[in-house]
Amino acid sequence: MTREKLQELIGKMTLEEKASLCSGADFWHTESVERLGIPAMMVSDGPHGLRKQDQEADHLGVNDSIKAVCFPAGCGTAASFNRELITGMGEVLGEECQAEGVGVILGPAVNIKRSPLCGRNFEYYSEDPMVASEMAGALIKGVQSKNVGTSIKHFLANNQETRRMSSSSEVDERTLREIYLAAFEGAVSSQKPWTVMCSYNKINGTYAAEHKEALTDILRGEWGFDGFVVSDWGAVNNRVPDLEAGLDLEMPASGGINDEQIVDAVKEGRLEESVLDRAVERILNIVYRFQENRNDSAVFDRDKDHEYAKKVAEETIVLLKNEDGLLPLSEKEEIAFIGKYARQPRFQGGGSSHINSHKVTGAWDVVKDWGNITFAEGYGDQEDVTDEALIAEAVEKAGKAKAAVIFAGLPDAFESEGFDRSHMGMPNCQNELINRVAAVQPNTIVVLHNGSPVEMPWADQVKGIVEAYLSGQAVGAAVVDILFGKVNPSAKLPETFPYKLEDNPSYLYYLGEGDKVEYREGVFVGYRYYDTKKMDVRFPFGYGLSYTTFAYSNLKLSAAQIKDTDTLTVSVDVTNTGSMAGKEVVQLYVSDVESTVIRPVKELKGFDKVDLQPGETKTVTFTLGKRAFAYWNTQIHDWHVESGEFRILVGKSSRDIQLEETVTVESTVKLPVHFTLDSTFGDLMQDKKAREILEPMMKLDMVGGQEEDSDVAASAISSEMMEAMMKYMPLRGVLSFSSGKVSLEQLQGLLDQLNA
Amino acid sequence: MTREKLQELIGKMTLEEKASLCSGADFWHTESVERLGIPAMMVSDGPHGLRKQDQEADHLGVNDSIKAVCFPAGCGTAASFNRELITGMGEVLGEECQAEGVGVILGPAVNIKRSPLCGRNFEYYSEDPMVASEMAGALIKGVQSKNVGTSIKHFLANNQETRRMSSSSEVDERTLREIYLAAFEGAVSSQKPWTVMCSYNKINGTYAAEHKEALTDILRGEWGFDGFVVSDWGAVNNRVPDLEAGLDLEMPASGGINDEQIVDAVKEGRLEESVLDRAVERILNIVYRFQENRNDSAVFDRDKDHEYAKKVAEETIVLLKNEDGLLPLSEKEEIAFIGKYARQPRFQGGGSSHINSHKVTGAWDVVKDWGNITFAEGYGDQEDVTDEALIAEAVEKAGKAKAAVIFAGLPDAFESEGFDRSHMGMPNCQNELINRVAAVQPNTIVVLHNGSPVEMPWADQVKGIVEAYLSGQAVGAAVVDILFGKVNPSAKLPETFPYKLEDNPSYLYYLGEGDKVEYREGVFVGYRYYDTKKMDVRFPFGYGLSYTTFAYSNLKLSAAQIKDTDTLTVSVDVTNTGSMAGKEVVQLYVSDVESTVIRPVKELKGFDKVDLQPGETKTVTFTLGKRAFAYWNTQIHDWHVESGEFRILVGKSSRDIQLEETVTVESTVKLPVHFTLDSTFGDLMQDKKAREILEPMMKLDMVGGQEEDSDVAASAISSEMMEAMMKYMPLRGVLSFSSGKVSLEQLQGLLDQLNA
Repeated sequence: MTREKLQELIGKMTLEEKASLCSGADFWHTESVERLGIPAMMVSDGPHGLRKQDQEADHLGVNDSIKAVCFPAGCGTAASFNRELITGMGEVLGEECQAEGVGVILGPAVNIKRSPLCGRNFEYYSEDPMVASEMAGALIKGVQSKNVGTSIKHFLANNQETRRMSSSSEVDERTLREIYLAAFEGAVSSQKPWTVMCSYNKINGTYAAEHKEALTDILRGEWGFDGFVVSDWGAVNNRVPDLEAGLDLEMPASGGINDEQIVDAVKEGRLEESVLDRAVERILNIVYRFQENRNDSAVFDRDKDHEYAKKVAEETIVLLKNEDGLLPLSEKEEIAFIGKYARQPRFQGGGSSHINSHKVTGAWDVVKDWGNITFAEGYGDQEDVTDEALIAEAVEKAGKAKAAVIFAGLPDAFESEGFDRSHMGMPNCQNELINRVAAVQPNTIVVLHNGSPVEMPWADQVKGIVEAYLSGQAVGAAVVDILFGKVNPSAKLPETFPYKLEDNPSYLYYLGEGDKVEYREGVFVGYRYYDTKKMDVRFPFGYGLSYTTFAYSNLKLSAAQIKDTDTLTVSVDVTNTGSMAGKEVVQLYVSDVESTVIRPVKELKGFDKVDLQPGETKTVTFTLGKRAFAYWNTQIHDWHVESGEFRILVGKSSRDIQLEETVTVESTVKLPVHFTLDSTFGDLMQDKKAREILEPMMKLDMVGGQEEDSDVAASAISSEMMEAMMKYMPLRGVLSFSSGKVSLEQLQGLLDQLNA
Repeated sequence: MTREKLQELIGKMTLEEKASLCSGADFWHTESVERLGIPAMMVSDGPHGLRKQDQEADHLGVNDSIKAVCFPAGCGTAASFNRELITGMGEVLGEECQAEGVGVILGPAVNIKRSPLCGRNFEYYSEDPMVASEMAGALIKGVQSKNVGTSIKHFLANNQETRRMSSSSEVDERTLREIYLAAFEGAVSSQKPWTVMCSYNKINGTYAAEHKEALTDILRGEWGFDGFVVSDWGAVNNRVPDLEAGLDLEMPASGGINDEQIVDAVKEGRLEESVLDRAVERILNIVYRFQENRNDSAVFDRDKDHEYAKKVAEETIVLLKNEDGLLPLSEKEEIAFIGKYARQPRFQGGGSSHINSHKVTGAWDVVKDWGNITFAEGYGDQEDVTDEALIAEAVEKAGKAKAAVIFAGLPDAFESEGFDRSHMGMPNCQNELINRVAAVQPNTIVVLHNGSPVEMPWADQVKGIVEAYLSGQAVGAAVVDILFGKVNPSAKLPETFPYKLEDNPSYLYYLGEGDKVEYREGVFVGYRYYDTKKMDVRFPFGYGLSYTTFAYSNLKLSAAQIKDTDTLTVSVDVTNTGSMAGKEVVQLYVSDVESTVIRPVKELKGFDKVDLQPGETKTVTFTLGKRAFAYWNTQIHDWHVESGEFRILVGKSSRDIQLEETVTVESTVKLPVHFTLDSTFGDLMQDKKAREILEPMMKLDMVGGQEEDSDVAASAISSEMMEAMMKYMPLRGVLSFSSGKVSLEQLQGLLDQLNA
């Protein structure tokens, strides 16, 4: 519908009708206005499958949904680092929504993985905002190409489940910009999601639901968002201020209470009616966008979509360890499959993203008829109790085989929306099983099913580790294809796996005190922390093995020196030097050589995935603009590049840089300078104008007889100290050390001159 | 002089005379008023020796001082953990001051070692506020027993030299209280230093010089300080507000400019004259306290004091490694002494604490005539250049001996007031020397001369490491006595030695950006960080070896349960189980088992040093009051104990706990509770009254059909998630999820009832 027509329609609505449109009709539908033929629109949980409820919604919206296809969760799709693949997944989801009449699928969820403990990490993408934003953008692109909306969530700084409805994330401006907002920014700017979902929490004391700076100034003003903002279910705080801040649609229904508040506020002159009209227009714009582009021929083909789910899973599974080239296994050998998750894989997390899968393929389903594979249950996952009988059976079968594959991971009860993990360990019964099997079978491989990093006390005891994440209902088929080499693993970790929880940068302050959660680690999230602190980690960010090998060569920069308004083109040749076709995730990091602001030692600024036949070489090209070199400057409240050298690092992970070059970037922006009595001589002397004015002054007898004092070397004050004292002396120090030769008025006059 | 007489005297003074008393007459003297017979008082730098300038003071006060005795610097005296020993050192210094007519010796310096890089760490005591405050108190007690004043410094949160005159230390309230203020608190409260010196820097944006809360409310109001506050030389910012805030004496002279400002302010009614009178009274009170208690018979006996300096040094030298019991060495063996510092020890740092030592004993001075010790220079310390000839000589002599002792450390240019170190390394030429010598001589011992931790890449290659810190002019004699077993080492590290600089908690943010330095690590300074994060360290806090062994037994608590108004007596038996007399530093840490606030895993709350003959047992007793269990509560702005269990840990270092017991402490203070719409049901249900009111409500049909839904286990929502959702639901959530059954007015009424 054109804007004109929409406004005409809104003009016909009563105040009450308009207010009614600002909250849901029920748990899953927007309100309709029969009198004017305004239709309702259905929304459904996502984002790695369609969770459309098939019955009367209960009050919390948690009842069973229709049978659908469960794709890999965000943790896994990010590991693919494959934008096209995830766009394809979005297309499939969009088609499913069209078939089911769902106008908006609620996702993707891009919140930064601040700690491995966050209960919803399995839904989220990465510890790196670029990876989160790029993968989210890829999914949005796919879904929306089918004329179905997305709802990028949870906006903003919602990185824990504990007290999520009342806690305040206390984050400094620069960290918000560089990490937490950045996770949304690229996806919103480039893919224009139809809706954005605001989170439950507060940011620096203000509820996300009424954070005008975030919901309006940044989202719309800076990033060009033009859809509607919807509350997470129950995230509305105070309806009228929320509406003014930019929260358009409240979900679910408020029982009319909040609609009434809006009506009253307009009537009493406390709320401009235009604010209400604006929200209604934004909502109806999307309702009609869906309505007018319905695809009546869309079909929800579950079996076909299951195949795409498998295709995605193949690229979400990360090969972490492969000692002695034990993998891939031969299909002819005697192999023991051990662990409950071989038969009943854990492939998704709990909560609003939970899919009622129409079928599930476990690894055992695929191999059970081969004849050469044995199975032992190994452990139960309802409670963490070591079952000696199960272990004995596993050890026996493992001992008789050529290799053992243990399917392990976190039980359902460990990972869910609603609460956070309390530790990073796996169940003791599983750790025990792995130790005992590895003790009798040197060729042991562990396949992990989990949505977030775990501690691996047995890592050195096994030869193979495969991180299957939560890879959806086809996970078993994908895992088997990787184990036996039908598929060459190509995923990489979108997050660091630390050795232990205490290593994590947020460890000391995660979850906060009461409702105050301080993000004291600032921009040092994930590898930005581990790499800058030079810490040993179990597996670094961006890491993942392949059955083939890749060589990097011929790194080229389009220029050795650029302005911050220019773009730099970086190209590198990647060659498959092994004997199997494979895909490589090429990563580009930028490192500021010297900076007056505190910056991570390197930051990811580009990645690409290339598919290479044995012997084949392809050139990968990256384009870097200002943002690749910039930090958020809190003085000018804008991105800023500090002039100087930057290292361009290209590699296979954050810890495996293959090639590097240097570029000099010159800023075209001069930061405003204002000198005060507190300005140090060191700072003043760096300013050309100040230097000219001050240099004659510096020759004054400030240091007394010092310069003639031949004995200075033997005295308390070294030349280094003398130099430092002068450098760090503020202008006002002259008053203390010039014995009255300089007056405050003189200094003030000098400052006026300097600041003129 | 009585207060009455003082006030009478002040009553006779003109406004100008009073103002003149508020700044120095010159660099080292307070102002006199001849007309009224008011004398000047001399002050001198300290605190590990007397730096009394013997000539016209230059403008920066850095020229040569009289020959004096250099005692171990703060880094070393803290390592003694021996209060009596340091009180004795204070007595010697007090006597020296009396002999020289010095009324106040400027020190001790108690600033917390936030980073190993701080240029003045060598003057400071510890990363732990209790150690800093106790050792400072011991010194103050000694000096002031001679009727000479001290000036505990630098107040407050001055933990770097970089930009020290303009930077602002941004520290949260709790961290200030528990760490940075605490370093001063005990010493000020219990030993009443005559003066306190305010630092150059700002604290949370306010210059220390005009920080009324620190200079007046806390220092005088809470801690009972009754001396005068003096500015660090040049630390005055804006004289009139500084005076009002509680900065009494400006040093050095301001050339009359600031006195005039005071006079004008009083005349113009901008400053109450009583504020000026108060400052004058505080200053004169101390001037007369010194004047009226002069000891005319005091003698500065340099040779005698040198002997005391040696005695102190013996207890400041920490034995860090002694593989195979290589130490003590035999006086009869052929031994190679290697390194410039064997002949010319580095024994103090640069800057205002620098002593013009009347004589220096190097290790080589002691042994050169024995006949069995050879010497090789090994390295130069003017620049970091590896001298192959020097190394070759050292390697040759080391190879021929039974053992090699390398005297290494940081050159003068590395450690000084005025600037911070840029890295934690030793000069490469010394590291190279140590590697090369250790390669030919398995019995290699390194003796370190440095004021702050260094990285030791060679630590695993040598059998012995002796940390001599900067142990004053008698260091060589003390080191030799330790090396050869005449003295049994008994010092322990008052700070953690991390493996590398990046491990330090302040690493990412140390020095800050521009003039803003964020103390983001909060209370997690030193071992509070390393222990809580379970990090490996080179040598932990409180660690140090002896030539004998000690056993701990019989840990007893006076009660299993106390109130926070009670005291707990803890006793433990310590036995010398070896064959040599020795001293042990017994340490008591308290660990809060469970806390709603974020706390370090343990904190030092007591230490004592016991002297034991072989086979001897002594009982060490600690008394713990409320503060041993409390944290600073920012709601009530007071110390608070959270009721619950606390572990009492007694051991030899923070990582070597020998015995532990548990005590339950019950708080007598109920924190104020105020419920709001944001209060979660979880929090509400913990409150007895709220529980009574809410429980009936909870039975309302809030969760819809959920409870009857037999299919819940199979659905998206686990029972864990359901429980968490209820617990974290804020009261206002009822509005979203009760379908209009509950109104805002009803909730408000409920809150009124709860808060009544």
